Amino acid sequence: MTTTALGEQDAALVKGVLAHERRALAKTITLLESTRADHRERGRQVLEALLPHSGKSIRIGISGVPGVGKSTFIEALGMLLIGRGHRVAVLAIDPSSSISGGSILGDKTRMEQLSMRDEAFIRPSPSAGSLGGVADKTREAMLACEAAGFDIVIVETVGVGQSETEVAGMTDVFVLLQLPNAGDDLQAIKKGIVELADVVVFNKADIDLRATEMAVAQMQSALALLHPATQHWKVPVLKISATRGDGIDLFWQTIDGYRQSMESHGAIAARRRQQALAWMWHLIESGLHQRFNDNPGVKHALPALAQAVQAGTITPSAAARQLLNY
Amino acid sequence: MTTTALGEQDAALVKGVLAHERRALAKTITLLESTRADHRERGRQVLEALLPHSGKSIRIGISGVPGVGKSTFIEALGMLLIGRGHRVAVLAIDPSSSISGGSILGDKTRMEQLSMRDEAFIRPSPSAGSLGGVADKTREAMLACEAAGFDIVIVETVGVGQSETEVAGMTDVFVLLQLPNAGDDLQAIKKGIVELADVVVFNKADIDLRATEMAVAQMQSALALLHPATQHWKVPVLKISATRGDGIDLFWQTIDGYRQSMESHGAIAARRRQQALAWMWHLIESGLHQRFNDNPGVKHALPALAQAVQAGTITPSAAARQLLNY
Ligand SMILES: Nc1nc2c(ncn2[C@@H]2O[C@H](COP(=O)(O)OP(=O)(O)O)[C@@H](O)[C@H]2O)c(=O)[nH]1
Ligand SMILES: Nc1nc2c(ncn2[C@@H]2O[C@H](COP(=O)(O)OP(=O)(O)O)[C@@H](O)[C@H]2O)c(=O)[nH]1
Ligand SMILES: [Mg+2]
Ligand SMILES: [Mg+2]
Repeated sequence: MTTTALGEQDAALVKGVLAHERRALAKTITLLESTRADHRERGRQVLEALLPHSGKSIRIGISGVPGVGKSTFIEALGMLLIGRGHRVAVLAIDPSSSISGGSILGDKTRMEQLSMRDEAFIRPSPSAGSLGGVADKTREAMLACEAAGFDIVIVETVGVGQSETEVAGMTDVFVLLQLPNAGDDLQAIKKGIVELADVVVFNKADIDLRATEMAVAQMQSALALLHPATQHWKVPVLKISATRGDGIDLFWQTIDGYRQSMESHGAIAARRRQQALAWMWHLIESGLHQRFNDNPGVKHALPALAQAVQAGTITPSAAARQLLNY
Repeated sequence: MTTTALGEQDAALVKGVLAHERRALAKTITLLESTRADHRERGRQVLEALLPHSGKSIRIGISGVPGVGKSTFIEALGMLLIGRGHRVAVLAIDPSSSISGGSILGDKTRMEQLSMRDEAFIRPSPSAGSLGGVADKTREAMLACEAAGFDIVIVETVGVGQSETEVAGMTDVFVLLQLPNAGDDLQAIKKGIVELADVVVFNKADIDLRATEMAVAQMQSALALLHPATQHWKVPVLKISATRGDGIDLFWQTIDGYRQSMESHGAIAARRRQQALAWMWHLIESGLHQRFNDNPGVKHALPALAQAVQAGTITPSAAARQLLNY
């Protein structure tokens, strides 16, 4: 929490971001994502200076299986929003990127129109994961985007691992994009994603409208059981066609209605407070775990103890106690 | 892992357990569950001496919502097994017991016949939770039961919190007891319990046979999507009536078939190795977390930092980094 005077270069960066310069924003995010400790420290300081200017966007999480149409949908939505005078940042969390080095979400080509617009900023998932992993970087990048004047931040994630929970944990509204087939529904229910959703959207309604309407009705009854409506919000289930642009307008009306309803009783601010705290705890857990694994005593004793636990010659508790004593 | 010579009293306890004396077993479990550190240490030593004699039972986990009929089912199953010459221990994990001090599972009265038999040992959930909580105690009690010659150990849990995952993580076969209604199904799917199940059983088939058969069929198709059959096992869906005793015999045939299929390719031993290791890691996480929370520097700084994180004046990462430095 020590506020150091910024170097000249970094002061310029802060000024650039606050002046809505895209290059300054990109540079800042690159610092935040850097694997070099000195760069990250500079990134941290720049972010600290930007922090008072962040928080003024609506943060939208969009999740769904690969191929559901996230990129197509975000492009259509982004173009509509730009047309209405908004500035839209799109960030991606792709858990696979830290493994493959590449990014299946970062295919800018998919958002051909949007990526050419000055009012849009599209940033693929960082490929390196430090404390807290990719999601922590995205969280910080989001704050920088807000300081750069983007009033809508869309965080896209593919449904792998913990990424939906992470994205729901950093956005004001979490949207689940679904395909109109029962397998997709069950997977989403099983993984607990339906429970996270504030809005459910069935895409590709153009292919089979009746099947889509059935899927909508089924999801509505599942939601009635799984996700009881609160006083202020009942999760709506929409149908769209991202390629044709059908339903995008109504989707935005829904998001706007959500925002108004939530803001009217302070629920967005409350959600953000709770999210920030939960994220801090998540990072603490990761940090404790990492430190434990790096402990030389643990490193030395672990293999034999793990072996003994597996062989049943020592109980898991006894082994855990011994390891915790290093 | 230090093997201390046992005191006279504790040596007698070990001898008693190995001689299948119920009182010695009960006393050992009481030591393991004690809130007194010296008792727990004695329990640890007794358990260590018993460890080479443990592991020879089949471990069955049974889970389901309150009222589904777990106690009724276990009583019927237990009596059937005793009739066939088995010795049956029933342990309960009730996450609510550590809060209420009581135990909604520990109603011995519900297993009236079974509890009167010498070949059965029924132990309610311990009410105190130390490192690893109630589940850790149950895990240790299970090992003691095995050393006392119980060749079937049933671990019962009510579907609350993480308890199903914990029970599935300490048993050879995890049985999900369901009610034949869609709400129950969806809850189980949502909570990821269906995915844990090796066998699904619909109880109370006597009330509405047709509804039960529909529920069985629906669960079968859900399982086909959620829990693909492995080479060695396809999750069966059974229907029973615990009060009438219908289907209990077939249930046991199913469990026996499971055991044979799994044992034939070493899958039970492999599962136990993996479970023991996972449990060690779980205990390590709890221990690290507890130590962090007990750190005086953390205790002192946490309130203000948590406040700042919630207010958005410091990022979660910066706060986490600072706290991890204490
Ligand atoms: N028929 C139809 N195809 C769509 C729709 N939305 C997306 N697609 C197609 O689905 C494929 C995957 O879309 P994409 O946006 O890359 O999905 P993502 O993996 O979720 O980002 C592409 O071939 C799209 O053209 C839609 O509304 N209708
Ligand atoms: N009709 C019917 N009632 C049952 C059956 N099994 C249990 N019950 C009743 O359901 C209630 C709850 O049973 P219990 O075994 O205590 O459920 P638990 O909370 O899961 O242990 C009791 O009133 C039982 O008599 C069954 O197969 N058929
Ligand atoms: Mg995409
Ligand atoms: Mg009961």
